[in-house]
This record gives sequence, structure tokens and C-alpha cells, in this order.
Amino acid sequence: MNIDEIREYLLESPRTGKLATLKKDGSPHVSPIWFDLDDNGNIVFITRDGYLKNENIRQDPRVALCVDDEQPPFSYVIVEGRVSIPENQKPLKYWSARISGRYMDDENYAKRYSAETGYSLVILKPTKILGYTNITD
Amino acid sequence: MNIDEIREYLLESPRTGKLATLKKDGSPHVSPIWFDLDDNGNIVFITRDGYLKNENIRQDPRVALCVDDEQPPFSYVIVEGRVSIPENQKPLKYWSARISGRYMDDENYAKRYSAETGYSLVILKPTKILGYTNITD
Repeated sequence: MNIDEIREYLLESPRTGKLATLKKDGSPHVSPIWFDLDDNGNIVFITRDGYLKNENIRQDPRVALCVDDEQPPFSYVIVEGRVSIPENQKPLKYWSARISGRYMDDENYAKRYSAETGYSLVILKPTKILGYTNITD
Repeated sequence: MNIDEIREYLLESPRTGKLATLKKDGSPHVSPIWFDLDDNGNIVFITRDGYLKNENIRQDPRVALCVDDEQPPFSYVIVEGRVSIPENQKPLKYWSARISGRYMDDENYAKRYSAETGYSLVILKPTKILGYTNITD
């Protein structure tokens, strides 16, 4: 996949991303995230303060993300890079609504989610993006 | 989820696992795998020799695996542990057929896949297993 195809793949249906982060002892952790893309090609997501994922990235910003299609002929995208947690968290509310709106067809959910506190907006700036299609063909 | 529910979740439909491994520089890598469970509750999967995933686990056996349902109300299982590549690779052919049979409804594919060389059977012995359901409820 070229970069435009990858962008489309990441946005076309609301697949979750599986985010790999590093624990304090250097071992890997991986769990699902909701995400969206900003206009600069960064992955934008939200983590809950005090939770493992949030603590991991505050300690080591190196992450990897995988988004895949689990049906034949199978396909996937891998993004690697570093995350940052912007000091200015004002856009959190905007992104909360936008991201939850992608995954939940429920306005009330987006409203409730974007009003909650104790979350941080996180930006993943890719250093490597790879996409593979038709794995089993 | 309790351990029986997690086992059922991992087996009920052929979801891919997203396997996080560690690269030489300690940064995380994550990509999809096909897997199955053995009778001892280990995750069994296959990697291609010389590929990044295979090289990563030969160097550092610490991995994490995530399997999730991407539809509301969302659910996921995380497995953490260490992998080993058995010296006795005779069961590779059996597991190749069994695992590919889970994901591909195509006998020829399983036959072809299990006859290929240059693959290694890998066993993930879990040290931690967690399962979460109804995330957005």
C-alpha cells in the first residue's frame, strides 16, 4: 500500500488500533485504542491518566500500532513512532467527541465521553508506516 | 472474564492476535498472527525464519498478545508471557495445518502452508491473562 492507501485503510471503517508500549522493565504491553488522524498524518488517541498505557508512554515514548482486517485475504498496517502528550490539552474535548463518534453511533456517548476528565490527548508521529494487503492470496 | 471465558473468547471465532515483540534497540514491534491453543493453555503460533518477528523473539522472549472485538460494546483479551521455539520442530506440520485451518476455509491452503519450509513453531506460555467485556456499556 502507498501512503494514500494506508490513510484510507486507517479511516475507511472504524477498526481499533492495537498499541504496543513499553513497561518499566522494558517488556511489551499491547491493548486496543480508538484513534483518528489529524491533518498532518499523525495518529491521535486518548488515554486515561494513571492507567498502564498512559504511564508507559510517559516513561518511554516509543510505540508501535497495528490495524488489521481479520478476514481473508487479510491485510494490515503497522505504524511505528514516538508519542507526545501535548501540554495544551484544550483540544482534548474536540478529539474525544470526534474519535468516539467514529466508533460509537451514539451522540450521547460522544457527549458523555468528551465531558469526562482524567484523560490525556496523545499524538503519535509516525517514523515508519507499512501496509500489506492480500496476505493469503 | 474468567479463564474459561477467555479460552472460549480466543477460540470462538478465528480472530487474529496482535503480537508485540521487542526489537534489538528495545522498541516495540506489533503485527498480526494466526494462533491456536494447546492442551496446556499455551498460545501456539508460527513465524517465518529470518523475519523481524522471529528475530525479535529469538533475542528477547518477552511478548504480549492482544485479541479484540472491534464492534460495540467492545471486548479484548491480553496475554503476556515468554515464548520459546522448541528444538523439536516435528509438530510444526501438524500445527501449520491446524492453525491455518482455523483461519482459511480451504483445505488446499492448509496443505500448501503446512508443506512449506522456513517456518518455526513458537509456544507462548502465559504469565498473565486478562479479559475485558462490554467496554462501552
